[in-house]
Amino acid sequence: MDSIRVDGDELIAFCADIFRKHGVGARNARCQSEVLVAADARGIPSHGVARLARYVAGLQTGQMIPNIEPQILRESPTSLLVDARGGLGAPVSVDTMTKIIGKAELAGMAFGCVRNSNHFGIAGQYAMMALSHDMIGMAMTNTAALGVPTFGRQVMFGTNPLAFAAPAGIEKSFVLDMSTTVVTRGKIEVYDRMGKDLPTGWAVDKTGLPARDPRSLLDDMFYRKGGGIVPLGGDSELTGGHKGYGLAVMVDILTGLLAGGGFGLDVMDTDVSSARVSHCFAAMKIDIFQEPDAFKKEMDRMLFALRSCPVAEGEERVYYAGLKESEFEEHAKAEGIRLDENVFKTLGLLGAECGVRAPAIK
Amino acid sequence: MDSIRVDGDELIAFCADIFRKHGVGARNARCQSEVLVAADARGIPSHGVARLARYVAGLQTGQMIPNIEPQILRESPTSLLVDARGGLGAPVSVDTMTKIIGKAELAGMAFGCVRNSNHFGIAGQYAMMALSHDMIGMAMTNTAALGVPTFGRQVMFGTNPLAFAAPAGIEKSFVLDMSTTVVTRGKIEVYDRMGKDLPTGWAVDKTGLPARDPRSLLDDMFYRKGGGIVPLGGDSELTGGHKGYGLAVMVDILTGLLAGGGFGLDVMDTDVSSARVSHCFAAMKIDIFQEPDAFKKEMDRMLFALRSCPVAEGEERVYYAGLKESEFEEHAKAEGIRLDENVFKTLGLLGAECGVRAPAIK
Repeated sequence: MDSIRVDGDELIAFCADIFRKHGVGARNARCQSEVLVAADARGIPSHGVARLARYVAGLQTGQMIPNIEPQILRESPTSLLVDARGGLGAPVSVDTMTKIIGKAELAGMAFGCVRNSNHFGIAGQYAMMALSHDMIGMAMTNTAALGVPTFGRQVMFGTNPLAFAAPAGIEKSFVLDMSTTVVTRGKIEVYDRMGKDLPTGWAVDKTGLPARDPRSLLDDMFYRKGGGIVPLGGDSELTGGHKGYGLAVMVDILTGLLAGGGFGLDVMDTDVSSARVSHCFAAMKIDIFQEPDAFKKEMDRMLFALRSCPVAEGEERVYYAGLKESEFEEHAKAEGIRLDENVFKTLGLLGAECGVRAPAIK
Repeated sequence: MDSIRVDGDELIAFCADIFRKHGVGARNARCQSEVLVAADARGIPSHGVARLARYVAGLQTGQMIPNIEPQILRESPTSLLVDARGGLGAPVSVDTMTKIIGKAELAGMAFGCVRNSNHFGIAGQYAMMALSHDMIGMAMTNTAALGVPTFGRQVMFGTNPLAFAAPAGIEKSFVLDMSTTVVTRGKIEVYDRMGKDLPTGWAVDKTGLPARDPRSLLDDMFYRKGGGIVPLGGDSELTGGHKGYGLAVMVDILTGLLAGGGFGLDVMDTDVSSARVSHCFAAMKIDIFQEPDAFKKEMDRMLFALRSCPVAEGEERVYYAGLKESEFEEHAKAEGIRLDENVFKTLGLLGAECGVRAPAIK
């Protein structure tokens, strides 16, 4: 697929204008746009502006409510429970993580849950907010049920991503941002578009045996006829699939159950938009255990050792979590955000529909 | 392999007597024994009394110091940093988790790190301590480096287990207790004893390509000649190996780095005993978010749904994390603890060496 590049700030302004045309206030429009563009900048286009059309559809169908104030349901010096009341995912997530960081500044650590929210973009974005405060950050969300338990043959939980960020000194920050299933639906869709069979160990069909055809899997999964994506670790206990299954349920507990929101099969996408979901956010001050500078020096030592690991035959480089994305981001800052040509065309159409001019190709 | 059964209390008393004969005080001897026997009771013999000989060797070589008071290095209402000073792993872990639960009772949540400790048995044991307090519990530890980063060919981090426990009402508690590598060394040793080739996706050899021979892998890994176990998700990005790699490093950060202890390659077993390691423990009160009874009802609904998931062709049952272990434990309570005959023989020899009679076969 061919790609083009656009200026990051122009792309944010474009998305924000689209959101405003659909009734979202200026601050929330900008906030949601920044999170979407950050995904493209970090090389995670599945969570970037390619989703703008789904957001617009969500706003049009009432799945996402453009301007609604989140409500604080419960609060303590270390915790916060928020009802997003169907609003956009990013603004309530940025606000909640900001408050959690403020609480952690005073109490050492804090944990926040949000329910009745919408797609919040990349989980890593919120975990990374902790870094400049010399804190460790975490963020998770549940998603529409697409994952099949080990030995099962029906979706029961989401791709439930978790993100964890810890600061380093001269090395890039360690930023783990991963779904707890082997892959997310986006990857299955890519294979569908390419007309390629699915690799072994990604998904099972209606019988619970390995799924090959991406098209029928996507349909069966969506309409819950059976089959779905398998947890990290694959479709058997031999390869540790039960561990990824456990992690996915752990995320559901820390988001949907703790927040008092939907979980498991309750969470279901519609044809045009994503499901209402629950998130959680955590921050912990490093200095309750170690002096931050000393900690970051040790982080540097570890991360340098990891990327200096002797390389397997036929491979080029050993990374650590966040390194590839951070390099991608630096490149995007210098050269502009890379977008798939088809995604760029869709953005143009979305803009034309409401009188917003697409950003210029660099 | 044939197995026998012994009474759980007798087995604990036997192990405690062995520990006492090697200089450990009564309370710590009993505490460490309870944790070891709990592993056997839950069907995790790799972490059970089969390790007693390694513990005795650790005490004899000074790797484990029989009676030493752990030292609190840093403390706040939500946190605790402890230096175990080379003592046994279980007593300092039970004490730290107990204090963390006490802090969480007041502050809503708390997090503790322990450095310079020894093998602490099953991580799940400490996470489960939170359950009766209507809390969510977590525990992690780093281990000797046995895991190879994605695209690498040398061990750089441990099998670094993480455990997460959340209470239910009438269902069994959800207890995830997993290494972040595909398997642990114990499984490689089992294949070595059986003279069987390793399954694909468990380990890589000195070149970074899939390892087949368990014997040469164990040697190369131990002497750090290259090769090792791959992270959860396998040896490629296609199957998500980079996610398990990220989780393993996350555990190292939350244990070794936060505790100011050893991490990565610093952590190395000896021929006869395990490496000094770091742990972390966390507890969070459920009622800062939901009424515990309501939360447990929702847990019941989720866990029942999971085990009621339609079963894949050729499989018998869908579990959730902790269910199998909990059923195993009930069986062990009624019928006695099942031990491998060879393990039982080794216990007999260990007892004979210091004048402690082995428990009776049931």
